[in-house]
Amino acid sequence: MSSGSSSVVCWKPTNGQNSREKFESVFRVLHDELIAHFASKGMPKDAIEWYSRNLNYNVPGGKLNRGLSVVDSVEILKGRSLSNDEYFKAALLGWLVELLQSSFLVSDDMMDQTMTRRGQPCWYRVDGVNLLAINDSFMLEGAIYYLLKAHFRTESYYVDLVDLFHETTYLTDMGQLLDLITAPEDVVNLSKFSLEKHRLIVIYKTAYYSFYLPVAAAMYMCGIPTFDSTAMCGGTTPDPYKLALDILIPLGEYFQIQDDFLDYAGTPEQIGKIGTDIIANKCSWCINTALAIASPAQRKILDDNYGQKDVAKERAVKQVFEELDMREKYKIYEEGAYQRIMGLIDTISEHQESGDVPGLKREVFKSFLDKIYKRSK
Amino acid sequence: MSSGSSSVVCWKPTNGQNSREKFESVFRVLHDELIAHFASKGMPKDAIEWYSRNLNYNVPGGKLNRGLSVVDSVEILKGRSLSNDEYFKAALLGWLVELLQSSFLVSDDMMDQTMTRRGQPCWYRVDGVNLLAINDSFMLEGAIYYLLKAHFRTESYYVDLVDLFHETTYLTDMGQLLDLITAPEDVVNLSKFSLEKHRLIVIYKTAYYSFYLPVAAAMYMCGIPTFDSTAMCGGTTPDPYKLALDILIPLGEYFQIQDDFLDYAGTPEQIGKIGTDIIANKCSWCINTALAIASPAQRKILDDNYGQKDVAKERAVKQVFEELDMREKYKIYEEGAYQRIMGLIDTISEHQESGDVPGLKREVFKSFLDKIYKRSK
Repeated sequence: MSSGSSSVVCWKPTNGQNSREKFESVFRVLHDELIAHFASKGMPKDAIEWYSRNLNYNVPGGKLNRGLSVVDSVEILKGRSLSNDEYFKAALLGWLVELLQSSFLVSDDMMDQTMTRRGQPCWYRVDGVNLLAINDSFMLEGAIYYLLKAHFRTESYYVDLVDLFHETTYLTDMGQLLDLITAPEDVVNLSKFSLEKHRLIVIYKTAYYSFYLPVAAAMYMCGIPTFDSTAMCGGTTPDPYKLALDILIPLGEYFQIQDDFLDYAGTPEQIGKIGTDIIANKCSWCINTALAIASPAQRKILDDNYGQKDVAKERAVKQVFEELDMREKYKIYEEGAYQRIMGLIDTISEHQESGDVPGLKREVFKSFLDKIYKRSK
Repeated sequence: MSSGSSSVVCWKPTNGQNSREKFESVFRVLHDELIAHFASKGMPKDAIEWYSRNLNYNVPGGKLNRGLSVVDSVEILKGRSLSNDEYFKAALLGWLVELLQSSFLVSDDMMDQTMTRRGQPCWYRVDGVNLLAINDSFMLEGAIYYLLKAHFRTESYYVDLVDLFHETTYLTDMGQLLDLITAPEDVVNLSKFSLEKHRLIVIYKTAYYSFYLPVAAAMYMCGIPTFDSTAMCGGTTPDPYKLALDILIPLGEYFQIQDDFLDYAGTPEQIGKIGTDIIANKCSWCINTALAIASPAQRKILDDNYGQKDVAKERAVKQVFEELDMREKYKIYEEGAYQRIMGLIDTISEHQESGDVPGLKREVFKSFLDKIYKRSK
């Protein structure tokens, strides 16, 4: 096996690119690097084309919020604009988060039997793909560690990044398992639902990889030390990664609850799609909130109508949600979540930097929160 | 996220266990450790039971050759019997190889639409599992890195082990892709086959994880240095990992070709199953050897009859194999492979040890080769 030789990077920003275009231009470099490595193994042309199509179909094309937030976080933590080399590395880490997400989505869409994703058929539904999508999902995951080694193997924080991606992946798989057995696509049983189960699913299936992973990756790249190293300095400073986790998990929870609410209450113009959570038997915040306060009569309506491919039944569920004043419930939840998270952010001491040891900055979390608070799309 | 605290191990061998039983007793400790960690995340009872069933159904129960060969290799390299702690760690690495294999088999069986595995229905065919097996396959893979971190994080070779598992996984996924597009389960097209394609599939899909991975993991555990560190000592010593790879990949190729041949020529009493490669359109050594030397008339018979669920057609293919003297062809191949691999093993210099730096031993490879040579089951 080849040792982790650092590849030569041929990337430069082009004038006039906006931040998304600049970020996307890094993906093309990474795509070519992955394909060159794959071809170097003697793979035939049809296999090379297959892998290239897998990458291009599944990795770019989303909102890229997770990937871009690595770049944003690195910029905030460094407190200055990045050199080309720094930008490339931050963007690369961002694309590793996007690769991880694409690996999840390719397999989750199969398990959930989802039809479309990002305005096109899900990958497994593309002609000739079908069950091969399982292996394609594994290859998207494998690409993460190939790129990580090629570009970060000599960094002191390489092993921390690898552990971070592993732990995040494993926790996300746990969340996906819990979601799948709580809300199977074809068997409706609302007695399996609860706000507590919803919380667990959201934290493990979404919050770790969407919120903690990008920020923690940026923190490692910026040289923010972990607890162990600060402890050695005899300090009682709280571990910055623990601090980040304690803010980002509630932030991720808030984001997903908002997403659940918008699936129900947002117009198609706002959210860019038609909400399907009720029809698809999703273990969403709305149904769990409704179940917690429904009268026996309302509960019966929910049991009889939730999770079925029938517009009239969907309407009946929505009617119960309206009766239970879901919009007001959400407004109260959102206000509380915002205040709670702001309070957590304020516990960060920005004066803990000593000498060359960089520290956390409130702005990393505030910029996240501001993007989410009261969004309607 | 939790940092890599080393868990307390409560494992001791029991009197009277044979080597397989001793190895299996370590699996039960690892199972309990994985389940305790999963439960500590607040997972509900049904999810815990699901994960436990996934582990118990898919990980033990095979021949365990790959896992046991880690233990055997560590014993040979150390040149003495192992302490309980050493045995546990070697067996743990063995089970990580078995976990990786189980992750591959769970998803490969779905993609190949295989019916049975190890005398029981494939996991995806167990009642209630179906597509959830995709996530289960990912969780088996995730377990590898959780256990690796819990038990090896403080070792200097931790990062080498992690890289080894990554690279092996990624190469195996590449081999699986090549196999899937060369020999799809439902479309027969023999013009896609060739001995060269067969070689690539065998090397990437099987040889790396079955032969190189167990030995390289054992080498890391025994402190055998990589090229980079020996190079620093100014030596021109060949990298022992490269040496191991150069022997184990041809060994793995030989093993798989033998396996392909036995699928065709072995009796059910010998191989413990009925060969299905012809019916299942497998890109096997036999069909590729036949294609390379068949007359136009024989080629037509192969085209018309290969890869179809029909006993008469299978018989027609076997008839061509007999006409082409497949048994003799195999005998010649096997003799040549044996001699070639023996020659490679003999290039290992056993006198390269200097001071405390442990080196390779020919016996590691010889014991492998002896287990394989002229086996009939």
